[in-house]
Amino acid sequence: MPHIPLPGHLPGITGLLEYSKHTAQPIRVLTQFLLRGESTLTPGERELIATIVSHNNECRFCTAAHTATADLLLGNTETCEIMKQDIDAAPVSDKMKALLKIAKQVQVSGRAVTPEAIAEAKVNGATDLEIHDTVLIAALFCLYNRYVDGMATVAPANPEFYQGLGQRLVDNGYNRLANGYDHLKQNQPS
Amino acid sequence: MPHIPLPGHLPGITGLLEYSKHTAQPIRVLTQFLLRGESTLTPGERELIATIVSHNNECRFCTAAHTATADLLLGNTETCEIMKQDIDAAPVSDKMKALLKIAKQVQVSGRAVTPEAIAEAKVNGATDLEIHDTVLIAALFCLYNRYVDGMATVAPANPEFYQGLGQRLVDNGYNRLANGYDHLKQNQPS
Repeated sequence: MPHIPLPGHLPGITGLLEYSKHTAQPIRVLTQFLLRGESTLTPGERELIATIVSHNNECRFCTAAHTATADLLLGNTETCEIMKQDIDAAPVSDKMKALLKIAKQVQVSGRAVTPEAIAEAKVNGATDLEIHDTVLIAALFCLYNRYVDGMATVAPANPEFYQGLGQRLVDNGYNRLANGYDHLKQNQPS
Repeated sequence: MPHIPLPGHLPGITGLLEYSKHTAQPIRVLTQFLLRGESTLTPGERELIATIVSHNNECRFCTAAHTATADLLLGNTETCEIMKQDIDAAPVSDKMKALLKIAKQVQVSGRAVTPEAIAEAKVNGATDLEIHDTVLIAALFCLYNRYVDGMATVAPANPEFYQGLGQRLVDNGYNRLANGYDHLKQNQPS
């Protein structure tokens, strides 16, 4: 049960964004720009960064939501599955492996990011902006994961819920969620 | 030395906000609303939350900047100093002690926030919104600290730099920094 009363039909982050609309707006804008804005990283690659950070923060809601989104964007479920166990074994480019390792370090602490991990990303072709965005996306999901779990929000158990949310994040991105929460009701645990 | 080339005269977060203006804008709006917007917590109390999280993340730049800001807003240096060592000994209300303990838990993980810490805040008069804002401010500084240290930004050694930055954050808040970085040059290490 959440630590404060939140809209009952809106689990995880969705209820928080509805509860605090003034803070939700810039959070949405930031996320939309970082995960869906123009970039040399694909939306699917950026969702992998969100997923590995959420997974390592053990945030059930965010991990399930962004795994579902990444799976849809990548067209398979293996990439996330393997990445969570072993980044080196994941079917992604060497550049992405290096960036995912940086994201994993950011999850621990900003101070945990090593010059070696940065050098590895650069040698595999990562641009300065890709490194910047990887660090900021990872830092943003450290915010999300703490917000979602620090308020003890509900994480639905049924996978269909996250399929629906993931499809919504594929179709509409992050800006539009504000107008689209009603559809979530149908997949809610009663 | 930062992991990517950043404006040389802008240390810590300031160079990152200049490097990536599209992401800087929503980060500024969010911070301004949470730390300076209408609230039953004073700006000084909210800067204490920023300070305890940055301190526990061992982020030198953010800790020094928000300590200076809190000191100016509270009119003393003891509160931050004592709080960093022992929240219970700090000269703040029992409600603030409870909220600072929640912030400290959020720094560790969203999952580290205990129902007991929430109950302690409530019994000492914290409102739902104050608890919400404490968790989100703490989560936001987990983002900032990771962004600043994950990019290996420079933290000036001279205390005068942070005095100047703190005064700026007292006078102008977070929205206006974009227009006011030039003044920082004068306090830069050469």
